[in-house]
Amino acid sequence: MSLFLQIVSVSTAIEEVRNLAVRCGEESVPLIEAFHRILAQEVRADGDIPGFTRSVVDGFAVRSADTTGSSDTIPSMLTLLGRVAMGDAGHHLIQPGACIYVPTGGILPEGADAVVMIEHTEQLGEQVLVKKPVARGENVLLFNEDFFQGQPVANRGKRLSSQDIGVLAAAGCTAVPVVKKPKIGILSTGNELVPATVRPREGQVRDVNSYVIAATVRDLGCLPVFYGIVSDEKEALSRVIGKATEECDAVLISGGSSKDDRDMVAAIIAERGRVLVHGIAIAPGKPTIIGQCDRKPVIGLPGHPASAFIVLIAIVRHLIIAMTGETGSTVRTLQAVLDQNIPSSKGREDYVRVAVHDGIATPVFGKSGLLNTLVRSTGVVRVPAESEGLETGTRIEVIVW
Amino acid sequence: MSLFLQIVSVSTAIEEVRNLAVRCGEESVPLIEAFHRILAQEVRADGDIPGFTRSVVDGFAVRSADTTGSSDTIPSMLTLLGRVAMGDAGHHLIQPGACIYVPTGGILPEGADAVVMIEHTEQLGEQVLVKKPVARGENVLLFNEDFFQGQPVANRGKRLSSQDIGVLAAAGCTAVPVVKKPKIGILSTGNELVPATVRPREGQVRDVNSYVIAATVRDLGCLPVFYGIVSDEKEALSRVIGKATEECDAVLISGGSSKDDRDMVAAIIAERGRVLVHGIAIAPGKPTIIGQCDRKPVIGLPGHPASAFIVLIAIVRHLIIAMTGETGSTVRTLQAVLDQNIPSSKGREDYVRVAVHDGIATPVFGKSGLLNTLVRSTGVVRVPAESEGLETGTRIEVIVW
Repeated sequence: MSLFLQIVSVSTAIEEVRNLAVRCGEESVPLIEAFHRILAQEVRADGDIPGFTRSVVDGFAVRSADTTGSSDTIPSMLTLLGRVAMGDAGHHLIQPGACIYVPTGGILPEGADAVVMIEHTEQLGEQVLVKKPVARGENVLLFNEDFFQGQPVANRGKRLSSQDIGVLAAAGCTAVPVVKKPKIGILSTGNELVPATVRPREGQVRDVNSYVIAATVRDLGCLPVFYGIVSDEKEALSRVIGKATEECDAVLISGGSSKDDRDMVAAIIAERGRVLVHGIAIAPGKPTIIGQCDRKPVIGLPGHPASAFIVLIAIVRHLIIAMTGETGSTVRTLQAVLDQNIPSSKGREDYVRVAVHDGIATPVFGKSGLLNTLVRSTGVVRVPAESEGLETGTRIEVIVW
Repeated sequence: MSLFLQIVSVSTAIEEVRNLAVRCGEESVPLIEAFHRILAQEVRADGDIPGFTRSVVDGFAVRSADTTGSSDTIPSMLTLLGRVAMGDAGHHLIQPGACIYVPTGGILPEGADAVVMIEHTEQLGEQVLVKKPVARGENVLLFNEDFFQGQPVANRGKRLSSQDIGVLAAAGCTAVPVVKKPKIGILSTGNELVPATVRPREGQVRDVNSYVIAATVRDLGCLPVFYGIVSDEKEALSRVIGKATEECDAVLISGGSSKDDRDMVAAIIAERGRVLVHGIAIAPGKPTIIGQCDRKPVIGLPGHPASAFIVLIAIVRHLIIAMTGETGSTVRTLQAVLDQNIPSSKGREDYVRVAVHDGIATPVFGKSGLLNTLVRSTGVVRVPAESEGLETGTRIEVIVW
């Protein structure tokens, strides 16, 4: 077979990785551990929320009709029958012309249909002067007004926010069915690479990509699994790729920045499975390989850190979303106005780093081998394949790192 | 002392919590664990990056002068002296009229000052035809072009991104000095509260706030420590607050939604230390208490989940930032256009929940006791204290949950 496939569009590459994705299984975790995890099943309220009509203020539970027309000058006078204790089921009953003190959150006594805030009353012994009328339902939270029993409160595929965690607590879901974190095998190839702990000699560089990839996939909700730096020796590399595909849900191979290395990675993937894409119309990031070994997606990332990072955001992110079934995933963006022209080639999707200050985006042009352009920039602006560039003054959407 | 202090502005409340904050200590963590942590010390490059001039393409290292004027029709002809191996220090030397093959990332041989991409050459045995001129420095990454030895690569107070992790790897910083995660004690008061694992009887509700607070502070980089639900009995509550302030860096007390409960929390804080604020001009969230016990900040949050959540974002967030020393912390925002008027009272900072679809923000009005308004909304829009509201069509900045 030929390893020199045609360069494909970004959308085709995304389609390919989505097709390769195998859905992760699910597991149950304690509620507080469920924060930021992806819900594997819809959760429904196990009861009505609230389970009784409650006051939302400190005040007097009344029959609203008894307060009609009351004012500072002509207050309604109601007989105080007692007070509701917090957490108490009560069984108080309000007769016409009567009221009962209810603290915030307390149950509304039977017969009452509203609560007058304490600020609008005056207590005179056993009598309460109400100086402002209340409407039916005022200052109360009605029985099951928030959620009714059996109502879905969070959908499958949702990445759980702090508020979702609160809703699950209210719904009684304390063991949460979440999608297992995808295990992503990470390995680097290249005889020039040394671990970050080692001081590089001349001709050597530290392995940066393993760390960038691990942090990025962790941010995307995965478990990175390190397979270290593997030499360019074909059998050694093939063996490690085999081990990684066996143990993980997907494998990301970084490095192989030279054509020889890339071809070797592609050859190994082809031998152990199949190569689907070898080259994407994206800049930076063109020399990306998409393949499959042992039924697992295997992605060969470009060696330059900036290129690898763009491919993680533009392509690998979609693989992970397809594996977890996350719905409504969005990248963080901000609006800005471009202060320089960005030239671009038609037929290639360009991701140009920009630094944003006070709503003004300045392109950070620089070689994709440089790390400082990554940390100096706020994010990237995408120049679509059909565009020949962006002009000064264009309002752009910046994908924030 | 009076527990009924004056209501203070949001900015005063922020100032007060900042003053109470005690800086967290630092610890050293392995590089991959440093992701999203706050850097406790500036990190400098331990060497020049790169430590040698490298090629960024596959091609032929040349003296750029030798390629002047070369074209498809009149190529320059250079003698191929050999090839650079990856990771090899080399000691190749290029004479005028000669070239050496260099893979991407390979060291540039002495005497060369540029690399011609292989695509612009043709190899004929020992001769290489160069069909396009290169400028001095073209297709190379210069010695220390990325960072020079001793250059600061990441500043103290920075929350480390994926790219920062890569830069630290390149700089040889594999044991990273980070700020210790603040330990935040969380307890709920209220006789009506039951744990989320229990099915509430009439008059009871599940403790939602502990979970929302824990998830939110975890998102802000803290370690939540649970102290459970404490009854409204004063001595029991005082004892738990004492334990929590002893063991944690700050304590958040939730619940106490009724005035009696709030007053009791304030009284306990006053007995064990001091109350600085009892009431903030913010809606929702007014009945917030800011105090200090055992030299630790103690915040009494409102009982309604939506109110507590707003106070976490608007006030407590600033406390945590002051504790960690994080610089450049931002809330995630998006721009939208309001499709309804939002009325507001002057002198009070309003946080109004909005749902955003396609750039249009619709206010989600609702009682602050409701959880569903939190999950139905995209975020909140802040209506400043000096404003009387926002009009339809206003371009607003939404703080995204």
